[in-house]
Amino acid sequence: MSRLSILCICFAVLAAGPGRVQAAAPLSDATQECLDCHASVTLGIVADWRSGRHAAMSVAQSLGGDNAVRRITAGEVPEKLRGVAVGCAECHTLRPDRHADTFEHNGHRVHVVVSPRDCAVCHTEEASQYAENLMSRAYGNLKDNPLYAKLQVSIIGDTGEKDGRITFAPADARTRAVGCYYCHGTRLAFKGLETRETDVGDLAFPVIDGWPSQGVGRVNLDGSLGACTACHGRHSFSIEMARKPGTCKQCHVGPDVPAYRVYAASKHAGIYESLGAHWNFQAVPWTVGRDFKAPTCAVCHASQLVGEDGELLVERTHRMNDRLPKRLYGLIYTHAHPRSPDTSIIRNADGQPLPTTLDGRPAEAFLIDQKEQGRRLKNMQAVCRGCHSTTWVRGHWARLDRTVAVTDAAVKQATGIMQRIWRAGYARGPAEGGNPFDENIERTWTELWLFYANSTRFAAAMAGGGDYGVFAEGRFNLSQNMVELAEWLQQQEKLEGKASKEKSAE
Amino acid sequence: MSRLSILCICFAVLAAGPGRVQAAAPLSDATQECLDCHASVTLGIVADWRSGRHAAMSVAQSLGGDNAVRRITAGEVPEKLRGVAVGCAECHTLRPDRHADTFEHNGHRVHVVVSPRDCAVCHTEEASQYAENLMSRAYGNLKDNPLYAKLQVSIIGDTGEKDGRITFAPADARTRAVGCYYCHGTRLAFKGLETRETDVGDLAFPVIDGWPSQGVGRVNLDGSLGACTACHGRHSFSIEMARKPGTCKQCHVGPDVPAYRVYAASKHAGIYESLGAHWNFQAVPWTVGRDFKAPTCAVCHASQLVGEDGELLVERTHRMNDRLPKRLYGLIYTHAHPRSPDTSIIRNADGQPLPTTLDGRPAEAFLIDQKEQGRRLKNMQAVCRGCHSTTWVRGHWARLDRTVAVTDAAVKQATGIMQRIWRAGYARGPAEGGNPFDENIERTWTELWLFYANSTRFAAAMAGGGDYGVFAEGRFNLSQNMVELAEWLQQQEKLEGKASKEKSAE
Amino acid sequence: MSRLSILCICFAVLAAGPGRVQAAAPLSDATQECLDCHASVTLGIVADWRSGRHAAMSVAQSLGGDNAVRRITAGEVPEKLRGVAVGCAECHTLRPDRHADTFEHNGHRVHVVVSPRDCAVCHTEEASQYAENLMSRAYGNLKDNPLYAKLQVSIIGDTGEKDGRITFAPADARTRAVGCYYCHGTRLAFKGLETRETDVGDLAFPVIDGWPSQGVGRVNLDGSLGACTACHGRHSFSIEMARKPGTCKQCHVGPDVPAYRVYAASKHAGIYESLGAHWNFQAVPWTVGRDFKAPTCAVCHASQLVGEDGELLVERTHRMNDRLPKRLYGLIYTHAHPRSPDTSIIRNADGQPLPTTLDGRPAEAFLIDQKEQGRRLKNMQAVCRGCHSTTWVRGHWARLDRTVAVTDAAVKQATGIMQRIWRAGYARGPAEGGNPFDENIERTWTELWLFYANSTRFAAAMAGGGDYGVFAEGRFNLSQNMVELAEWLQQQEKLEGKASKEKSAE
Repeated sequence: MSRLSILCICFAVLAAGPGRVQAAAPLSDATQECLDCHASVTLGIVADWRSGRHAAMSVAQSLGGDNAVRRITAGEVPEKLRGVAVGCAECHTLRPDRHADTFEHNGHRVHVVVSPRDCAVCHTEEASQYAENLMSRAYGNLKDNPLYAKLQVSIIGDTGEKDGRITFAPADARTRAVGCYYCHGTRLAFKGLETRETDVGDLAFPVIDGWPSQGVGRVNLDGSLGACTACHGRHSFSIEMARKPGTCKQCHVGPDVPAYRVYAASKHAGIYESLGAHWNFQAVPWTVGRDFKAPTCAVCHASQLVGEDGELLVERTHRMNDRLPKRLYGLIYTHAHPRSPDTSIIRNADGQPLPTTLDGRPAEAFLIDQKEQGRRLKNMQAVCRGCHSTTWVRGHWARLDRTVAVTDAAVKQATGIMQRIWRAGYARGPAEGGNPFDENIERTWTELWLFYANSTRFAAAMAGGGDYGVFAEGRFNLSQNMVELAEWLQQQEKLEGKASKEKSAE
Repeated sequence: MSRLSILCICFAVLAAGPGRVQAAAPLSDATQECLDCHASVTLGIVADWRSGRHAAMSVAQSLGGDNAVRRITAGEVPEKLRGVAVGCAECHTLRPDRHADTFEHNGHRVHVVVSPRDCAVCHTEEASQYAENLMSRAYGNLKDNPLYAKLQVSIIGDTGEKDGRITFAPADARTRAVGCYYCHGTRLAFKGLETRETDVGDLAFPVIDGWPSQGVGRVNLDGSLGACTACHGRHSFSIEMARKPGTCKQCHVGPDVPAYRVYAASKHAGIYESLGAHWNFQAVPWTVGRDFKAPTCAVCHASQLVGEDGELLVERTHRMNDRLPKRLYGLIYTHAHPRSPDTSIIRNADGQPLPTTLDGRPAEAFLIDQKEQGRRLKNMQAVCRGCHSTTWVRGHWARLDRTVAVTDAAVKQATGIMQRIWRAGYARGPAEGGNPFDENIERTWTELWLFYANSTRFAAAMAGGGDYGVFAEGRFNLSQNMVELAEWLQQQEKLEGKASKEKSAE
Repeated sequence: MSRLSILCICFAVLAAGPGRVQAAAPLSDATQECLDCHASVTLGIVADWRSGRHAAMSVAQSLGGDNAVRRITAGEVPEKLRGVAVGCAECHTLRPDRHADTFEHNGHRVHVVVSPRDCAVCHTEEASQYAENLMSRAYGNLKDNPLYAKLQVSIIGDTGEKDGRITFAPADARTRAVGCYYCHGTRLAFKGLETRETDVGDLAFPVIDGWPSQGVGRVNLDGSLGACTACHGRHSFSIEMARKPGTCKQCHVGPDVPAYRVYAASKHAGIYESLGAHWNFQAVPWTVGRDFKAPTCAVCHASQLVGEDGELLVERTHRMNDRLPKRLYGLIYTHAHPRSPDTSIIRNADGQPLPTTLDGRPAEAFLIDQKEQGRRLKNMQAVCRGCHSTTWVRGHWARLDRTVAVTDAAVKQATGIMQRIWRAGYARGPAEGGNPFDENIERTWTELWLFYANSTRFAAAMAGGGDYGVFAEGRFNLSQNMVELAEWLQQQEKLEGKASKEKSAE
């Protein structure tokens, strides 16, 4: 090998950068046919796919490789996939009989929506873990919960007016799809074929209700749940993407689940933002302190982590609460994580579809027990201990525990005031068949637990106490809404008292 | 060539990185004279300029190059510019008779403020497109609209008090310059010369009212409108900067035009944030899927895009609404884009300087027609289709259309309530000569259309529905302010009723 | 040297990237012993340390190097440190008699908490400057100010209820540690040893109240104040980290001190976000325009800056207000910076622990004088002038001065209304022994000066007027809260009037 060639390779590798892999694997005839048109029809998709691992190696090469190459968790992979790169046809013509949107397309039986069960042909373990993930049920968990439906309609519903009051009617499908179900995922439904003029003549394409959607709980046309593309963006499906916080931010940034916002103001994010450009987001396994120096979302919640000598700190998981004993996201209180990813089955002691009663008693039969909580806590702390001493870790968790207790107590106090307001008839509460979320003072209460108690807890959990823990949508607002609730009730009572006095004076 | 030299070059290229170009072109004598002092007087500017393309090649070299080198759209360039790099003197002594701030400076006739008409000497097409861009009129569009003046004074005006009510007096020039006109641009005015002591003795410098300003609609001292530096930061004028979202964020991040915030929570930004470091932001032309994998602001709104074989997807434009059929930024409703960049000429059917009436009827004579809307829609969808199928694109736009309809309906309902409040005299509305923006309940209404309806639409437009579409300044707040308006009106009526009862009882 | 070796070095350097330095210096025996266990017990810490400068060279090598290598400001360094890398033992066994948490650990006298006085053994100048930095007193400045204590308890205190009103009791230590004191720093206290089971048998470890903490004003176990790790993250202590805005963001992002938010929407940040990946954040000294093209926080407030020929623009400082004449962070007005970093000693003319009276008169005896303000202004403007002309700089500061005047006037007006509310008894003010921050209308006033006046000033100071200066937590909200205060007072007076009329009618 000449010195120049070495230099050329050196250059090529460096120029390609960590984000690019050169396509080299043999393509199936079917995929080649797809590319013949789609390289110009949907050229961005094709160019993106070319830069990813699916295009770079055949399934057999991946199966034969070590940890750093092999990403396939299936024991067996269908013979016809083994010798070729994972191209268009490999995914979009897989299991054609199972997909309601399979259509005849230039001699191939193609389906538009690739589902987790398609991906499971190679990525078996990930798909089966994800099926047990709360997120995979995000569609039904929202839709099939009658109480959440009331919250939903009061936010995204069509507004009208009756007797001077704002009314809410259920939102249409398109509004739902860009509203709550953008993250939760839509229910897809095949509506038949339509013929469209194209550059190569008239062609038939499926019409799919609810499409597009990349929501985590998408109900697919083969009956499976979820969209791998929610985190693993098409069509390069880079592991780097799933490991970086921008990916999670797509859904976890609003004031209701401010995970990204809180992370972004934490010490961990400070380190990531300043040094992350030097880290290795592609290494498998992922080495703590060498490949990265501070956690991203994936480090704590999903990734397999090892030490420099390869020792395992924690296993990879696609069941995102595997390292989470408690659900901090208050509904309306914190609670042990649900046993089943299907939370629509939960009923509390008062018969409501909530993991706790309105005064905070947990629906224990539906929640994981102490032992399972302990197992998950141990998982998470194994991550912490990669960089922190036991003393440190204990100190951190003691504070989080305290924050959970304090915020739950505050929510209980606020809910008590809200219930007095309902009982006094100053607002129409659930007991009178009212929507508990659709009046102004009810919003004050909703914000308190949904935005401010959550932000405060997330801040304690992610060691980002300074901002979201105090002023930005944390304790400052929590205490403010508490005072507002109490003052509002007092004012109503005062006006009422005045009114009754007037009445008796008449 | 020795191996060491090869290595050195290798190192140099790598160390320089994609953001740096080495200065190599011949300098004019005048520029050399400038540098003799300014390399130490304003050393950051000089070092920055040295790293850019203007310093790296002569105009002739650029003119002679292919697409990847040539950035000049002028057919002819003045002879004296051709042989040299574009240095200090080339821009700051250009067209001296046209600039009111031209002053004698060490034997040269220098002007401080370089204007789009100066840049147009080489970048002709960009400048003429920009002159038709809404942004170029941002100064007058705000200043010359009597209704916007009322909104402006109620926000940035000097506050006083009269009879217990807050009054607003017009803000001074300096407040305006760091307020609304920071983005809109200031009107510059030459106020004469002043003599200042410097390291090289006493020198005279121009005094310029409104300076500094890099607002998009700056009124320049040669009468031209705009500041290229708003997006192309001095003095390296990197195309990479204009192509990255941080540039647009300078003005499009507030709750009124939350483009950046919404983008930052979208799938597109998730991909950009996680993989963008590997992309090529300098390539001209810019290849979809290879140079970048997800859009930044520039991709959708401005850049020329091609496929891997060089086929054109869409032309470059500096008329930023060339790909925008509708203006989502509600004033107070969405509407077809204005025909003229000068929006101060618009009058609706009720004679107000607004593109629609308060109940939503468009001022059609001043807005682009269906055909032109169709042309712009096609431009934008050509970008979408670079990476998305027709089915996908149609599904996306159907949702956006629905969101536009739903939010416009909500604004109409809210405005109806506001008008009842004005008619009842609970607030002083425009009919009574009141400023419609300066009372608390009027702010509730203003936020509804200016912040929340806008955020909701932007979220639908940029497929970032999950956050800004629902909880963060979107539908949650929109519905909340709607309820607030209605409850406030009811309370006033109740108090009023009580008052009238009392009156009749007296 | 073989060609292959050259290539290997080339590769190694490039693969390492700008963020990594290979460990090469000799280790002390003590450090080697630490590593024998901790390379697996706290592997992330060890790997992180290995990648930093402390591991890469001995103290003597650093002392012998030029500017670019030497980071040690001590004239003399203890002999035993000179020949070795700065490893675990060098810091964690330094000055053992001074640290209350020193404990016997496998034959070594180890302390957990490394303090600024430990760092000062090599970094003398930085530590002594930091001791004069306001931040080093952040713990006491909050805790020992009786007025701030009232603000604190109304935000993070435990809520109860009495006679229908919300009461606040002081928060517990853990809540404080994840609340205000997360940034301010906690007071550490040694509570004795506890024995814990470990992989190598039972070992004793110190129990430390207030641990962990990386707050800027941490009270350490050797009596020193501060935590260098607040900005220089463990254990690679990269200068790059301290120079990037993500570091400062950890504490300066909330609505009370929105420095990061405002920066992020400025032109400076736009340039940093789009081009920063190409800059050199490790160079010492740091060259304006070449190493970086736009300021980060560190550029303006801390770093030593030079021109391309090495000429000094401004000295490095760890006294963060060395370049700040005025404190924009209103308490409740802007004011000249305090003379002493201990602000708990300040008393205004009315005896309150505030730098101004409630109507804005400065507590001059405790604040720096005009001359010192002039010196600091000159320091800051030396930074501006690196890239901006004198005309530009003057224009910028004139606007900031005006913004300071306008916002102070607005705060004075709002405070006047608040005082009328207190005097009328509509809220319980300080004169009646009430907490001035714990009622709803008091929060309206608090937000006005703490959030909105601050954001408006920061926006003017950092040339980010377009967003935070107007709509996002700036003038829009400031004027809104002003109107709210006035309207609320009017409504109370109206209700009162009605009540008194009723009374007289009875």
